[in-house]
Amino acid sequence: MENKQRLISGVKPTGRPHIGNYFGAMKQFVDLQSEYNSSIFIADYHALTTVQSAGEMKRGILDIALDYLAIGLNPEKVVLFKQSDVPQVAELAWIFNCITTVPYLMRAHAFKDAQAENKEINVGLFDYPVLMAADILIQDIDLVPVGKDQQQHIEYARDIADKFNRVFGETFKLPKANILREVETVKGIDGRKMSKSYGNTIGLFAEDDEIEKQVMCITTDSKGVEESKNPEECNIFALHKLFNSENELGEIRKRYVEGGLGYKESKEILIENIKKFIAPLREKRAKLAENKEVVLEILKKGGKIARQRAEEKMIEVRKKIGVDLDL
Amino acid sequence: MENKQRLISGVKPTGRPHIGNYFGAMKQFVDLQSEYNSSIFIADYHALTTVQSAGEMKRGILDIALDYLAIGLNPEKVVLFKQSDVPQVAELAWIFNCITTVPYLMRAHAFKDAQAENKEINVGLFDYPVLMAADILIQDIDLVPVGKDQQQHIEYARDIADKFNRVFGETFKLPKANILREVETVKGIDGRKMSKSYGNTIGLFAEDDEIEKQVMCITTDSKGVEESKNPEECNIFALHKLFNSENELGEIRKRYVEGGLGYKESKEILIENIKKFIAPLREKRAKLAENKEVVLEILKKGGKIARQRAEEKMIEVRKKIGVDLDL
Repeated sequence: MENKQRLISGVKPTGRPHIGNYFGAMKQFVDLQSEYNSSIFIADYHALTTVQSAGEMKRGILDIALDYLAIGLNPEKVVLFKQSDVPQVAELAWIFNCITTVPYLMRAHAFKDAQAENKEINVGLFDYPVLMAADILIQDIDLVPVGKDQQQHIEYARDIADKFNRVFGETFKLPKANILREVETVKGIDGRKMSKSYGNTIGLFAEDDEIEKQVMCITTDSKGVEESKNPEECNIFALHKLFNSENELGEIRKRYVEGGLGYKESKEILIENIKKFIAPLREKRAKLAENKEVVLEILKKGGKIARQRAEEKMIEVRKKIGVDLDL
Repeated sequence: MENKQRLISGVKPTGRPHIGNYFGAMKQFVDLQSEYNSSIFIADYHALTTVQSAGEMKRGILDIALDYLAIGLNPEKVVLFKQSDVPQVAELAWIFNCITTVPYLMRAHAFKDAQAENKEINVGLFDYPVLMAADILIQDIDLVPVGKDQQQHIEYARDIADKFNRVFGETFKLPKANILREVETVKGIDGRKMSKSYGNTIGLFAEDDEIEKQVMCITTDSKGVEESKNPEECNIFALHKLFNSENELGEIRKRYVEGGLGYKESKEILIENIKKFIAPLREKRAKLAENKEVVLEILKKGGKIARQRAEEKMIEVRKKIGVDLDL
């Protein structure tokens, strides 16, 4: 296992995942789990910038752990842990703060966005890129799977690693971004990118009635049953692509073009397929949720492994900066 | 011991102390050591904002420990430790970052001064008040001895404690500033306040020749030996006040007013007195420096005590913010 490249991914314990999240990132991460020496952490100390209620935080952490275990994350292969179980990242973030300038951090997208909206942002949000750099660098990571819009985080981590290495001597590996496939961007029920902020999502663990309701709301044009339709312009068909084999998809496409498949029937087919896809995930999740102790044990075990790796790195870092006095 | 109020003081391991530091702060702290349940920490993680060389950092930490032990700090009474031995403060500082706004931190004196000088300051310097708040609050401190110009730090700690308590429930004690006596401000050899930046200091552990040289440079007017002099306007006399009993001082004062005590003789008396005062401190320091292991052991022991107290507090904090999942 130790010869494989190290890969890490962080997930904030906020909000519930939808199928866009699943195909866009979660599934890809699970697909990678055997190929790399992988870790995934629940970024509770990042979430603290917005989640300031103990109940919400606890539920959020447990939910994310259940989500990933339900979709097939194998805790024997992947180190699953919560960030707060590695308090060394905060220590390292402080050290990085001392070699990072304020103007440099002000160039971060998240900060500029908040400024543009005239928000009085908190220091945690401002210092976010530094904590994230610590999360990555403390684990000697090679690769970080990210969406295209998150590449800046990796650049910050690389810059900070490079600065530390120049000031205090070679210590940190420079991580690379592993850009995730775009999966033609999963479309929501209104045809725009599926996103919580648009309210156009289908929950990854949705109940049957929610699936039915959301699919029935998918917007289409008003072509009749017998009319020929262009599948590539249909929001229903866009979702069919995620839940059908090439063969099945070919058949649906044919019926679209030839006419005879109405939008209602197309939606019904989609509903059945999504139900078939979600049901086992939802059941697995429910089963796991009955045994919270098992989940907590997985997190605890993962935390211990991640903490040990981090502490090893910190022993080196403390020597490099001179706060370790041992003669 | 536990019924006494808790007092803490932090010292940056940068620069060598002079007699102005001694009478202005260090001595007062040592005088307080029995009265309170006292801790003193060597603020190495604060110093990292400016000290970015392992050798300089290590020397600085050891020097400060030697300084305080030499002037009579009793490690059986005072918990002497280095900040980096309590990494929990960085964790708590991160948590505080999430409830502290950027504009609020921008109002800190140190930040405004740096901005005024157009310096590209590092995030550590910007976030300094938050780490300091964590240093204090994590130890359930009642009192922090500070100079008048450092009161803002305590205000930050109080504000942050109050904010945390309101958001997450009563957790932190609100510390009070214990303003140090001004000791009529120790004057340097040029009559201005003794300060490293003025180059007008006499080192607290100065060698005899340095003492002679510095005292001989004390600026005076040009009155002759027999002329009557106003002791309150004399820079030499200002220093006599620190090294003489009321009785001895009365005699010198008399000779100033009556005439007959020339500045040269006055300086020679001062030199003898400073030498007598410094010699035992310097010798004690030299002796301690021969046994660095003993000093390191003291720091290690202090670090363990401080870390235990901090960890106890953090267990409570992690529960309050919801990152501790134990059911």
